[in-house]
Order: sequence, then structure tokens, then C-alpha cells
Amino acid sequence: MSVIYTRVALIGLGLIAGSMAHAMRRAGLAGEITGYARSADTRAVAREIGLCDRITDTVAEAVAGADLVVLCVPVGAMGAVAEEIAPHLAPGATVTDVGSVKRDVITQVGPHIPAGVHFVPGHPLAGTEHSGPRSGFAELFDNRYVLLTPEPGTDADAIARLRALWEGCGAKVEEMDADHHDLVLAVTSHTPHLIAYTMVGVADDLRRVTDSEVIKYSAAGFRDFTRIAASDPTMWRDVFLTNKDATLEILGRFTEELFALQRAIRTGDGDHLHAYFTRTRAIRRGIIEAGQDTDAPDFGRVQRKRETPAT
Amino acid sequence: MSVIYTRVALIGLGLIAGSMAHAMRRAGLAGEITGYARSADTRAVAREIGLCDRITDTVAEAVAGADLVVLCVPVGAMGAVAEEIAPHLAPGATVTDVGSVKRDVITQVGPHIPAGVHFVPGHPLAGTEHSGPRSGFAELFDNRYVLLTPEPGTDADAIARLRALWEGCGAKVEEMDADHHDLVLAVTSHTPHLIAYTMVGVADDLRRVTDSEVIKYSAAGFRDFTRIAASDPTMWRDVFLTNKDATLEILGRFTEELFALQRAIRTGDGDHLHAYFTRTRAIRRGIIEAGQDTDAPDFGRVQRKRETPAT
Repeated sequence: MSVIYTRVALIGLGLIAGSMAHAMRRAGLAGEITGYARSADTRAVAREIGLCDRITDTVAEAVAGADLVVLCVPVGAMGAVAEEIAPHLAPGATVTDVGSVKRDVITQVGPHIPAGVHFVPGHPLAGTEHSGPRSGFAELFDNRYVLLTPEPGTDADAIARLRALWEGCGAKVEEMDADHHDLVLAVTSHTPHLIAYTMVGVADDLRRVTDSEVIKYSAAGFRDFTRIAASDPTMWRDVFLTNKDATLEILGRFTEELFALQRAIRTGDGDHLHAYFTRTRAIRRGIIEAGQDTDAPDFGRVQRKRETPAT
Repeated sequence: MSVIYTRVALIGLGLIAGSMAHAMRRAGLAGEITGYARSADTRAVAREIGLCDRITDTVAEAVAGADLVVLCVPVGAMGAVAEEIAPHLAPGATVTDVGSVKRDVITQVGPHIPAGVHFVPGHPLAGTEHSGPRSGFAELFDNRYVLLTPEPGTDADAIARLRALWEGCGAKVEEMDADHHDLVLAVTSHTPHLIAYTMVGVADDLRRVTDSEVIKYSAAGFRDFTRIAASDPTMWRDVFLTNKDATLEILGRFTEELFALQRAIRTGDGDHLHAYFTRTRAIRRGIIEAGQDTDAPDFGRVQRKRETPAT
């Protein structure tokens, strides 16, 4: 790999920014990586572990002279950060972001982007339930999708260059319309997260009755839910507030289906349940065939090892 | 380890029975393992892979002379199988089962157990989304809980011996009341499975609109749901039909909480969402501290490896 950007500024130093720093270094994609976080504690940790080449105490210093600026803050903070960095952006620079919602980010950030600066919104479909500057690792994006949602008329070279960076980080890159992105993600990520949060909350209520049994016997389905429901609260609050319409639409469908299954249980309609469960089993096969998971029977197992990098 | 039972009969040759056969052989816990399945195809596969020492063509042959009989059939079939084996059970033998619901199994099986035969219901909290005689492996029960739910007055020696077998298979064994078991499992397993099935069904509807995007971009939460929703349809149909009351009770609580979160999204109440998500994050820590999962950040990753055995 060769250098794609002379200077990359990472604004917000959590899981995604940290993993980008590691991945860019692994492939030598950036001449210099600067970093800024609002919290002095986060900056101190980032300096201690050498997360970037340079951690700055102001956002202006971080973005000065950068040909790529990556906004890695919660979706709800994107507009304020864009406004703050705008006067300091270099002509010809590209601004991107890693937010899980795209239409709202475009609405927040777009108006602050100066003429001559390119804005290419992005969303890496990758993460863990951990957060903070210590949580990043170079392999996070390997074989994962990054979705870019540039508005029509965006500079093609700027898009191609950002695509090359993500591919250098190990990702597969696709472009789609921002609204369509938000609907697809409401199904594949946002609503499942809300449901997992809800189920874990219900269990927490019951836990007060049965001591630690819910935790102790949390085999099978529930443990995966708790992993999902351990994700960053601020990030997810902002996701639901900014992708409200699509999430509520999918939640409505979910509730309708759930009530149908609930009625089948109440009335003892085993055929309905069996047919439904057979249909959903087929979807799993589709995901395995799409290469987005393996068929290894690790479900419900105790020790999962991090895989070796795919390089 | 030394031999705990002279002859163990496995009735039903799916994931759990197969894994028990492998685990008992690993530790030398059974003098002989016999096996029976209703399906001739299943018996043929079991013979081909040498799953047991002897696969019989009748259930009577399998249980003849066995000092332990393990019912590994779907919960809905337990009563009929118990009735069938009853005349062939050896005096002093123990009958156990591996069903995910316990009160209903006791009601179905109990009346068929002859005098002088011990019935010790059991439930290993372990599984994968795979099923059938080829899906078993010796490590499935390592460090997992097995819950025994014997009725008051059950022979203490019979319970102790079954406990020793499960411990020899790598499991941790605890006893609890059958009704309490069914409530706890409704929270930790049954309701989460129903919710996962529902969400995957909703996505399947949307998939018809957006082609394969739901599968292609199934990072994060949804992929874990599809793994859960790929579990055996017959087993899960029976679970919901036989643990109806507890499942409906927990579903009611779930819906109530979901509606509260849905309203918070609709009204833009970010504080409510953030507080809820912070609370659920703490439960994850409890599970890790309880040793029921690791803190490794593998969530959303592509390749998961099966861990090496703990022993």
C-alpha cells in the first residue's frame, strides 16, 4: 500500500477512530495521523498509548493541513463539531464521518462544509460492545462493509480516494442513498439493538426477584442480547433520536409480528410457530452464504477467541 | 474418571445426545452407550459415524439393561416416548431428560415411570444452532450449567450419580424447582428466542423489497439474531407450547418496556434512552464476572473459531 492521504485528522477518539488509526498504520495509508477528543482524559490515554502521531489540545490544530478529516463523534454531536472545524479546513480537503445514521448527519454537517471542501458521509458496519481509545484494533474492518452515502454531484475523485482508504483498511466499500441506508440499518442494526436493550432491561427487573440467576444461567439467546445491549449508550441514544422514522416504522412491523406469534402460543397453534421458525432458519443460511458469518457452532459457548487478521 | 453407568441409553440422536456420547467417551463415564432414533435415516447416520457403541432399531432394545436412560427428544414427544419405554426399563434404573421446559416434562413423563425406577429431570444449558446426529461435539457442556429439577422425595443416590455424570461431561450442576426453572428460562432463553425469530421474520419481509441487502449488511445486532433464529423449529415450537404461561408473562413485560422506549423515541426523550442503555450495560459486566462469557471484543466479527476444550 502507499500513502493515500498526507494527513488524516481523527475527531473523537473512540473504538472506530482508534481502529482506523491502527488499520491505517498497518497498511501505511496516512503520512501523519492527528487526533483530537473533547475530553482531556481521553486525550491523555490516547497520548499514553501512542494512538496517533500527534494528539492536539484543540480541534483547530488537529484539522489544520489535513487532507482528510474523519468525524468519529456520536451522531448527535456531528453538527456542532462540523461548525467548529469549518474555519480551519484546508481547501480541497475531504470531510467524512462514521455515524450510524446518514440523513441526519448530512442535514447537520452539510451546511457547515465550505466551498472547495468535499463531504463524503460514511458508515463502517463494524464494531464491538467496547468503547473508548483503548478499544480499537487494526482488524476491526477486515472483510466488513463500509457504506458511503455522498449526495449527487459530489466530487468523484474525493469519493474514490476515500474508498481506497477504507479498502486499504480491509473493508469492502459500497455507495447508496442516505435515506435507503437509514431504512436498511433500521432493520439490520437499530431495531435489533433496541429490542436487545429492552429484553435485558426486563431481565434486570426480574433479577431483583431471583438474585443472580438470570446472569448465572444466561446461556443461549440472552447472553448474545447482553453483548448487544452493552454498546455505548450515548451513541445509541443518538441513533434512535436521529433515525426516528425508520426505527418506528420497523418497530411497528415487529410488534405486529410478535403479537401474531404471541397469539399462536396462547391458542396452541403449533403449525404457525413451526412454519415461522422454519422460514427464519433459511435466512441464516443466506447470511453464511453471503460470507458475513461462519457456520461454526460456537453459539452459547464460553470462550470466543479473536480471530487472526485476514491481512 | 471411572465408569458411572454400566449402560447409558440415548433416546433421540440430535445435538445434545450426540454431544453427550462424545463427552461420556472423552471421560470414560459409560460402560456401553446405546442409541435409538425414530428416524431410520438418523439411525443410519449415527451408525455411519459410530456415534454410540450400538444403535438399535427399537427403543426397547436400546433401554434394555440400561442403568441410565436419557430422553433427548423434543419436549412435545417426551410423554409418548416415556410410555413406550416404560415396560422395558430395568429395576433401579434412572430416567432423565434434556428438555428445555421442566414442569410439562414432569407432567408428561412422571406417570409412566414404574415403581423402582428413578426419574430425575434435567436441562443442560448448552446448544448451538445446529441439529442432528452429526452436530454433536464433546466440548459442548464444558463449563456450562446443567439444571436438575427432581421432585421432592426423589432418591438422593440417583440424583448424585446423575450429577457425577454431568460433571464428568464438563458441566456445573445445580438443582432447582421445576416451576422456578421454567420462569428463569423464559427470561434467559425462551422469550429472547421468540423475539429473535420475530425480528428475523420482519427482516425477511423487507428483504423482498430490498433484495439481499438485509443479509449483505447484516453486521452488528441482526446477525446474532439470525444465529438464534436458526435453531431447531420443532424443539422451539414445543418449548413455547409447553412453557406457555411463563413465556406469555415475560412477553407482556417485554412489550410494556418496548412501548415505553418507543414512546421515548417518538417524543425525543434522550435522557430516558440514555439511562436505560446505561443500566443494561451493567448487566453485561455481571455476566462476564459470572464467567459465562468473555470480554473479548469479537462482536460483529466474521470468523469465530471454536475454542479448545477447557480441560
